[in-house]
Amino acid sequence: MTAYTNLNVVPFVSVENMMRLVLTIGTETFLTELAKVIEEDFRRWEAFDKTPRVASHSDEGVIELMPTSDGTLYGFKYVNGHPKNMREGRQTVTAFGVLSDVGNGYPMLLSEMTILTALRTAAMSAVAAKHLARPSSKTMAIIGNGAQSEFQALAFKAILGVTDLRLYDIDPSASERCAKNLAGKGFSIRTCTSSQDAVEGADIITTVTADKQYATILSDNMVGPGVHINAVGGDCPGKTELHKDILLRSDIFVEYPPQTRIEGEIQQLDADHPVKELWEVIAGKRAGRESDRTITLFDSVGFAIEDFSALRYVRSKLKETGLYDDLDLLADPDEPRDLYGMLLRCEARLQSA
Amino acid sequence: MTAYTNLNVVPFVSVENMMRLVLTIGTETFLTELAKVIEEDFRRWEAFDKTPRVASHSDEGVIELMPTSDGTLYGFKYVNGHPKNMREGRQTVTAFGVLSDVGNGYPMLLSEMTILTALRTAAMSAVAAKHLARPSSKTMAIIGNGAQSEFQALAFKAILGVTDLRLYDIDPSASERCAKNLAGKGFSIRTCTSSQDAVEGADIITTVTADKQYATILSDNMVGPGVHINAVGGDCPGKTELHKDILLRSDIFVEYPPQTRIEGEIQQLDADHPVKELWEVIAGKRAGRESDRTITLFDSVGFAIEDFSALRYVRSKLKETGLYDDLDLLADPDEPRDLYGMLLRCEARLQSA
Repeated sequence: MTAYTNLNVVPFVSVENMMRLVLTIGTETFLTELAKVIEEDFRRWEAFDKTPRVASHSDEGVIELMPTSDGTLYGFKYVNGHPKNMREGRQTVTAFGVLSDVGNGYPMLLSEMTILTALRTAAMSAVAAKHLARPSSKTMAIIGNGAQSEFQALAFKAILGVTDLRLYDIDPSASERCAKNLAGKGFSIRTCTSSQDAVEGADIITTVTADKQYATILSDNMVGPGVHINAVGGDCPGKTELHKDILLRSDIFVEYPPQTRIEGEIQQLDADHPVKELWEVIAGKRAGRESDRTITLFDSVGFAIEDFSALRYVRSKLKETGLYDDLDLLADPDEPRDLYGMLLRCEARLQSA
Repeated sequence: MTAYTNLNVVPFVSVENMMRLVLTIGTETFLTELAKVIEEDFRRWEAFDKTPRVASHSDEGVIELMPTSDGTLYGFKYVNGHPKNMREGRQTVTAFGVLSDVGNGYPMLLSEMTILTALRTAAMSAVAAKHLARPSSKTMAIIGNGAQSEFQALAFKAILGVTDLRLYDIDPSASERCAKNLAGKGFSIRTCTSSQDAVEGADIITTVTADKQYATILSDNMVGPGVHINAVGGDCPGKTELHKDILLRSDIFVEYPPQTRIEGEIQQLDADHPVKELWEVIAGKRAGRESDRTITLFDSVGFAIEDFSALRYVRSKLKETGLYDDLDLLADPDEPRDLYGMLLRCEARLQSA
């Protein structure tokens, strides 16, 4: 790999290179380091341009652009959500992203983000739990054992020391696959036959189901005092996972309220229902958990700054690992005003070849 | 090149392949065919999702995302505008774009769009002039002879039969370069020493200067009856090229009024000053030019649908030319829910290699 000094070249991290990057660094180390970058960016939350995602909805799903900037770097993610894809052998969610230099507008990184989004979502969940769950938490129930479940488990192990997992999915083969994939990774794992069974005695409950509908993965009687709920799956209008009564009993923490009120579990509540911004807890401006009996809820929908952090982290790893390709993405004429001349010189080059 | 059947693969048109594509098809044929696709899409204007661009402004410039969808395809362009870049040997404007399948959200094309944007802007200008300029138009003045000037000239020749060019730039070397680049392409070219000199007797006046400031490239006395003005350069808040009095005498045609009122020449006018939508002329719903003495003005700022058309056209040329690369952009596990398992299988593959 050459150093990226040519103005036309943008470093590109393919799916293959993202996998190699994660394996080279180690999944748990990657999640831990990424969590640190997310925390860094959440501590300087006020420095970012924030805007709700730009969504294009259709009957089948949604395509979204999620831009943000800290004034020095600009990042955006393209992400789709198409629940029916799974039945056709495609991913429900795929994503890629770009990081750019605000000073000249040139992209500095293009990266796959399907895998990276699963990693950043898991790192974000664990960061929130680090600040909100009881410090002694060791046991986590994971309701919904799809594409994100192993990443969630590994992040909570690496960052919080969670080692006991209870897995539940309406499809038992999903729980079996998750348990098999996590075998030998230092967990004690129990697959469960009901969500009630899974949450019994759990310190943390992660809900990460995929259907686009109002569902009640957790009902009120299943959540006891002191539990931290990591609600990942409810992330668009019409898609929620928790019974409203749980929300009314919980201390609710969110990423960016204008977006979460539309997309998160709290779409079930009044628009003025009090919620707390997670960045204030991370920045030390506000307390997290108030008592051992408080039910804390991280109503996670995924915000552009987390993707920005993830792209920033990946970029920081390129030089040492060389795990990228050079992409000829930007026209770079010898004389900047001579774009057409570049075409003429290409013609001359091809004719003389 | 392999057929793009693998779900992980997105066809990618690099700068090199875009140049080869234009040269293989021929620049004028490319512009003519692209103009037809733009007209097709403008005729079904009402089928598109339309939204003003999503801009991130900084002291140095702007980074924008321009999405649109016709319900079947989704496209967006990333584009920056940084006037100071030229002094640092970079392009003022660089761009890339993506076309996706609305049905499953998967990207179907990633393409460089720095060159493509110059081509689509020129094709759009010529389409507007075809519907607005006097049919006998043969002479065009081009004020501002930077990166877009040759493309404008070639589009007006290919689509309208404009053969006489008068070039003016505050930097005479820019006019000389433009004239040299267009030598042997079938034009009669005169480089001029003032904009007054250039516009004298011209049927069409194209203004395409680059400075981000309120400028008066054309003053009122320079524009006679019957002229068509193709105002390309004024395209963001605070950047205009025409004296307000010209606007008040002109029949003004625009792409998407909510965007043009912010970015175009008409930012100088009252918010309710009457303007006509170009798509209505192209669709036959409204007359274009009213008389031989009318001054028509296309207040061009560039709209997402034009980029969508350009991406659609480029994609239609991939199979026959093979001028693309396969980009490993999308994670494609054997079993869609098993994203983490894909990582494990990559690990096993690397260990056994």
